[in-house]
Amino acid sequence: MDEKEKMLAGEIYDANYDEQLMKERLLAKDKCFEYNNIKPSQIEERKELMKKILGKTEKNFLIEQPFICDYGYNIKIGENFYSNHNLVILDANKVEFGDNVFIAPNCGFYTAGHPLDYETRNKGLEYAKPIKVGNNVWIGGNVVVLPGVTIGDNVVIGAGSVVTKDIPSNSVAVGNPCRVIKKI
Amino acid sequence: MDEKEKMLAGEIYDANYDEQLMKERLLAKDKCFEYNNIKPSQIEERKELMKKILGKTEKNFLIEQPFICDYGYNIKIGENFYSNHNLVILDANKVEFGDNVFIAPNCGFYTAGHPLDYETRNKGLEYAKPIKVGNNVWIGGNVVVLPGVTIGDNVVIGAGSVVTKDIPSNSVAVGNPCRVIKKI
Amino acid sequence: MDEKEKMLAGEIYDANYDEQLMKERLLAKDKCFEYNNIKPSQIEERKELMKKILGKTEKNFLIEQPFICDYGYNIKIGENFYSNHNLVILDANKVEFGDNVFIAPNCGFYTAGHPLDYETRNKGLEYAKPIKVGNNVWIGGNVVVLPGVTIGDNVVIGAGSVVTKDIPSNSVAVGNPCRVIKKI
Repeated sequence: MDEKEKMLAGEIYDANYDEQLMKERLLAKDKCFEYNNIKPSQIEERKELMKKILGKTEKNFLIEQPFICDYGYNIKIGENFYSNHNLVILDANKVEFGDNVFIAPNCGFYTAGHPLDYETRNKGLEYAKPIKVGNNVWIGGNVVVLPGVTIGDNVVIGAGSVVTKDIPSNSVAVGNPCRVIKKI
Repeated sequence: MDEKEKMLAGEIYDANYDEQLMKERLLAKDKCFEYNNIKPSQIEERKELMKKILGKTEKNFLIEQPFICDYGYNIKIGENFYSNHNLVILDANKVEFGDNVFIAPNCGFYTAGHPLDYETRNKGLEYAKPIKVGNNVWIGGNVVVLPGVTIGDNVVIGAGSVVTKDIPSNSVAVGNPCRVIKKI
Repeated sequence: MDEKEKMLAGEIYDANYDEQLMKERLLAKDKCFEYNNIKPSQIEERKELMKKILGKTEKNFLIEQPFICDYGYNIKIGENFYSNHNLVILDANKVEFGDNVFIAPNCGFYTAGHPLDYETRNKGLEYAKPIKVGNNVWIGGNVVVLPGVTIGDNVVIGAGSVVTKDIPSNSVAVGNPCRVIKKI
């Protein structure tokens, strides 16, 4: 497997010195840079460019600026998707959102992790685990979602939460680390 | 009541498809976009534009860039107001700051909330509760203040706090959720 | 001592009305503004300007955009330094990173603090305590590091942590406030 295949398979890969991955990241970052420099009221122009960044979208979506990602092609948003400002998605692996997902400002979805062993880490070796968010989910402001996490359907994540583990469907979860406090 | 009147009254309203509110938000976001693209050392130009965004300010204030809000006209800052970088205010309802308020980087004041019931939420129906911050308040970095919260006078909120409930005057409060740890 | 000397000595100083410090901050912020407006794929141009902002760097480093600091000259990065997007460093005092430091998105290193006594604080008087990060350190996303903190060698700080006290070498630490949970 080449480095990209290892990355997508969730295995340890060379994130920093692989030329293909570097090229793809810079391409995505240039597009995000362009996106973030469109005047906010130019909604149609923003949507057109976002479709190019993500490869494919449903009809009804809006992502406020600035938005930043690593590759773009690993992100899949469902119908009726809204993210407020400063969404950061490190999509070295898949980040999939169901339908009717609302995300408040300053949230981060990070698939990327580093080895705890610093000798391995210092070589630029990383891994990435997929993140999945179900249907009908509201994610509060300044929430961080970590590698490998699955959030179920009909979930509310409270503001400022750090989501380190899976959150089951039909629940409200809050805190650092994020825990279910109530069923809906 | 029309949607804007419902919004300002703290009632459930259509945040996403009401044309007047959409127009007002885009106008505010275009102005913030313009503000964030002024060279930082052009202090007077920044202050002039910020006065237009907020409608009215006192004499002595500075808001570092970038700054983002939803409407602008619902925000009131007092004399001697300073906010560091990346202030995000979702001002669907009033956000009022007293005199001598200092805000560290990456803080969010969010008046906007969504229903827990996803069927209502998915229709784009929201509510917004006012936020009030007293005089002589220092808010640490990466703090989130949630809908309906009142912070009293002479208060210090520790970095990284998530302020979910009112904080009484003359106190230091920290944590997620934010709790008083000491009286001043 | 003048205000800058007091600042660098960790003593109470006038942060807001001293002309020399104001001038230096605006200069640094203009350079950061310029840095953040370079197209991301222009890596060499970015590195050249970052060398000017920081005064001196090692050979191998990358700081994703946007990046914001107060002065620049108080920041020292080691060899093999990488920071992801939205790094904010308030460097009113020294902020020193060892070799092989990796920082995830949305992190803040704040040397600046204000007096708890609001009468002193309202005059614009502040202090700043140095921050030191050792070698082989990985700092997770949305982490805040507070004034005076030293993080040792071979440390991992979990995402969303608020680092209020020193973290010893060879440890994994997480939470708000951040506490050691495991030795490496």
